[in-house]
Amino acid sequence: MTDRYQQFSTSGVGRLLVKRLGLPNPTPLRRFKRGEPALDGPALIGGAPGGRLLDQVSSVLKASGIEVLTSALPVPPGGERGPSYGGLVFDATGISTVEQLRGLYDFFHPVVRSVGACGRIVVLGTPPEKVAGAEELIAQRALEGFVRSLGKELVRGATAQLVYVEAGAEDKIESTLRFLLSGKSAYVDAQVIRVGTHGGNAAEPDDWSAPLAGKVALVTGASRGIGAAIADVLARDGAHVVALDIPAMGGDLAKVANRVGGSAFQLDITAADAPAKLVEYLSGRHGGVDIVVHNAGITRDKKLANMKEAAWDAVLSVNLASQLKVNDALLSQGVLRDGGRIIGVSSIAGIAGNLGQTNYGASKAGVIGMVNAFAPVYAERGITINAVAPGFIETQMTAAVPLFIREAGRRMNSMAQGGLPVDVAETIAWYANPASGAVNGNVVRVCGQSLLGA
Amino acid sequence: MTDRYQQFSTSGVGRLLVKRLGLPNPTPLRRFKRGEPALDGPALIGGAPGGRLLDQVSSVLKASGIEVLTSALPVPPGGERGPSYGGLVFDATGISTVEQLRGLYDFFHPVVRSVGACGRIVVLGTPPEKVAGAEELIAQRALEGFVRSLGKELVRGATAQLVYVEAGAEDKIESTLRFLLSGKSAYVDAQVIRVGTHGGNAAEPDDWSAPLAGKVALVTGASRGIGAAIADVLARDGAHVVALDIPAMGGDLAKVANRVGGSAFQLDITAADAPAKLVEYLSGRHGGVDIVVHNAGITRDKKLANMKEAAWDAVLSVNLASQLKVNDALLSQGVLRDGGRIIGVSSIAGIAGNLGQTNYGASKAGVIGMVNAFAPVYAERGITINAVAPGFIETQMTAAVPLFIREAGRRMNSMAQGGLPVDVAETIAWYANPASGAVNGNVVRVCGQSLLGA
Repeated sequence: MTDRYQQFSTSGVGRLLVKRLGLPNPTPLRRFKRGEPALDGPALIGGAPGGRLLDQVSSVLKASGIEVLTSALPVPPGGERGPSYGGLVFDATGISTVEQLRGLYDFFHPVVRSVGACGRIVVLGTPPEKVAGAEELIAQRALEGFVRSLGKELVRGATAQLVYVEAGAEDKIESTLRFLLSGKSAYVDAQVIRVGTHGGNAAEPDDWSAPLAGKVALVTGASRGIGAAIADVLARDGAHVVALDIPAMGGDLAKVANRVGGSAFQLDITAADAPAKLVEYLSGRHGGVDIVVHNAGITRDKKLANMKEAAWDAVLSVNLASQLKVNDALLSQGVLRDGGRIIGVSSIAGIAGNLGQTNYGASKAGVIGMVNAFAPVYAERGITINAVAPGFIETQMTAAVPLFIREAGRRMNSMAQGGLPVDVAETIAWYANPASGAVNGNVVRVCGQSLLGA
Repeated sequence: MTDRYQQFSTSGVGRLLVKRLGLPNPTPLRRFKRGEPALDGPALIGGAPGGRLLDQVSSVLKASGIEVLTSALPVPPGGERGPSYGGLVFDATGISTVEQLRGLYDFFHPVVRSVGACGRIVVLGTPPEKVAGAEELIAQRALEGFVRSLGKELVRGATAQLVYVEAGAEDKIESTLRFLLSGKSAYVDAQVIRVGTHGGNAAEPDDWSAPLAGKVALVTGASRGIGAAIADVLARDGAHVVALDIPAMGGDLAKVANRVGGSAFQLDITAADAPAKLVEYLSGRHGGVDIVVHNAGITRDKKLANMKEAAWDAVLSVNLASQLKVNDALLSQGVLRDGGRIIGVSSIAGIAGNLGQTNYGASKAGVIGMVNAFAPVYAERGITINAVAPGFIETQMTAAVPLFIREAGRRMNSMAQGGLPVDVAETIAWYANPASGAVNGNVVRVCGQSLLGA
């Protein structure tokens, strides 16, 4: 599970060799640690004329302890080391013509070189599909090509994101900006996120360091890997975690549950009576549930010509059908409380397809369908449904992948390294936050801007 | 412009070396030639129970000269060479549950190994966003993960596509199936295409070998490369081509216009009076225009920190702003006739972004925005707007790319080779076809299922 290449490449001798040979040189990513500042330096903010988010951006950043600059720091003459920004945030909602896209250039060109290691760039726009005028739609859609290109230029672990904020949702961006402008989004890069007007009033947590206090979170497949990391992070944020896995994983499951001060629940979610048992357990022991993370998933890889029927059925059943049955039971029985959160785990394979994974790819594309289908329905009750789509994450599963393929998957992204389970978990915790009620229907890749795509 | 590696790898000695060393072994792609059959073998068709397209599929295939089989050919025992299919077509519109996705496995598993070189797989579904039931939406969305995974498994130049056909559009699929089930789609792989109900009655061409007879087609940037190929293909299909390029390319432009029996029109489309001049020329000389292909595009690559203002402005102006002005002029002056076709050229860089192309990526994402913005508006007049997004295409532009980057771009796709300009042109000719009135708002990649994506 350790990235030995990265250990080597950041050692004294390794660093030299990497440089001489032109090998990938991954920057150790700055991840969230309690007590450390959100960003490693001040954030410069700016916006195109007519934008509607700059005041809100400024106050959110200040509230999260970030020093806010509204004009660029002076660059010293000659070879001296210039200023270093922890982040750059640009409000592009005022851009309504192709010509005004020039505002992106004018803001970023002089300062993009001064973004520090693991710095954060965020561009804010209006969802193109919500814009009435054709040219404004086009200009807003163009932001995506800009941000994705910029993501590929950034070095040393810096990231760039595009957040489309619906008109009327100006006061609902705090949880998203806090996530993106921190180490919590270390391996999220070049993503397009939508913040809508649904979700009622923004429910700002009493304490941003324990936003899930008083919440009950169900995590399936929680005995190890990404699932265990999700349990850790949700518990860190204050939730009582119900860690679920199949009985065969009972030992590991108990360890995770104990570690996070939660409960272990052994259940095969594909069993016919699983939804009923889950309803009984959650309502009986916990009076309901607030957060459901459908992390349980399996692979049974084979080319379609060589795939057994059982491999197709098992993957579709665990990764997709069981989730639908569980959602249906929790919703119809009123076990998922109003303001609840459902979070699916898709995959790059569900977006771009993958060799030997017709079953897995179908199931993970279905998870995206699940988000699309239910987001508008659930919104009426203040419940959200979103998904993460992990890229190459360092786990026991990926450690078993043959070396060459593993190295290709691990390096072929803008970070030149794999992500960690915690990176997926932090993204899920952002969705789970009570202040994320307007974050609904999103599928965000946690992939370091993997080159692999659709 | 030649692919020397492919020439080498298909030679006697080369073939041996490639096999021993495990190097990529690209199959020479079968491209359209007049007089040759659409497919190299019979097509097996099937469908999930309750589907609504199988009859139409059968008659379209027969009309295009394809032998249609409705049950699999017997596989000889032992080591004998089995049957070889030119195509497999599966109607998945009857699939409304996750469990029914098993129909994909049941149809493809026994026969996918028998798809011949450059064979064609097409899965037909219902657009998820047009489906009322949640589980049907999810199942239909899952098709995408299946098809994209299958595309990565197929060998020897075979392709797989997903066509979402809206309810009510059953009689509007002929131009799309003829395109996909032929050498015309040689480098189109793992794409998702939508056929809608708009566009009035399907206008079946009198002669499928000259579907554009009597039409006037404007092609910008037509003096060479992809633009010249577009002129060739549209002229082959019967159109009178107005080849447009800047005066500095006048010599090459005249050659193309002469070759295709069309007209050359020298114009800088970024000039303030260009739209007016174009209106005057097209209405005066040709009484209007039926097909507009916005192929003209430039690159001015630099990292944003090093990019000059002029490089930003020029790329946005040529690749995006000028197209909007031209469309506006042609539409508002009534020069683009009812039933017209507007076709934009986007790029993988507009989808996934590209290093050093913040300007180009923004402009090409804007082209996608242009399609999104105008498709519903134009549909009312029977006009369609779509775009192609080329991946690695062998042109003078890509020949100038440094060797290592060129080889990576060229091989990192399911075809292990670059496409040819004609592949982009054939895709455009499909959009331009009068029978493609229900093909609107699509962005189709011509990329051999490039691994590079968003």
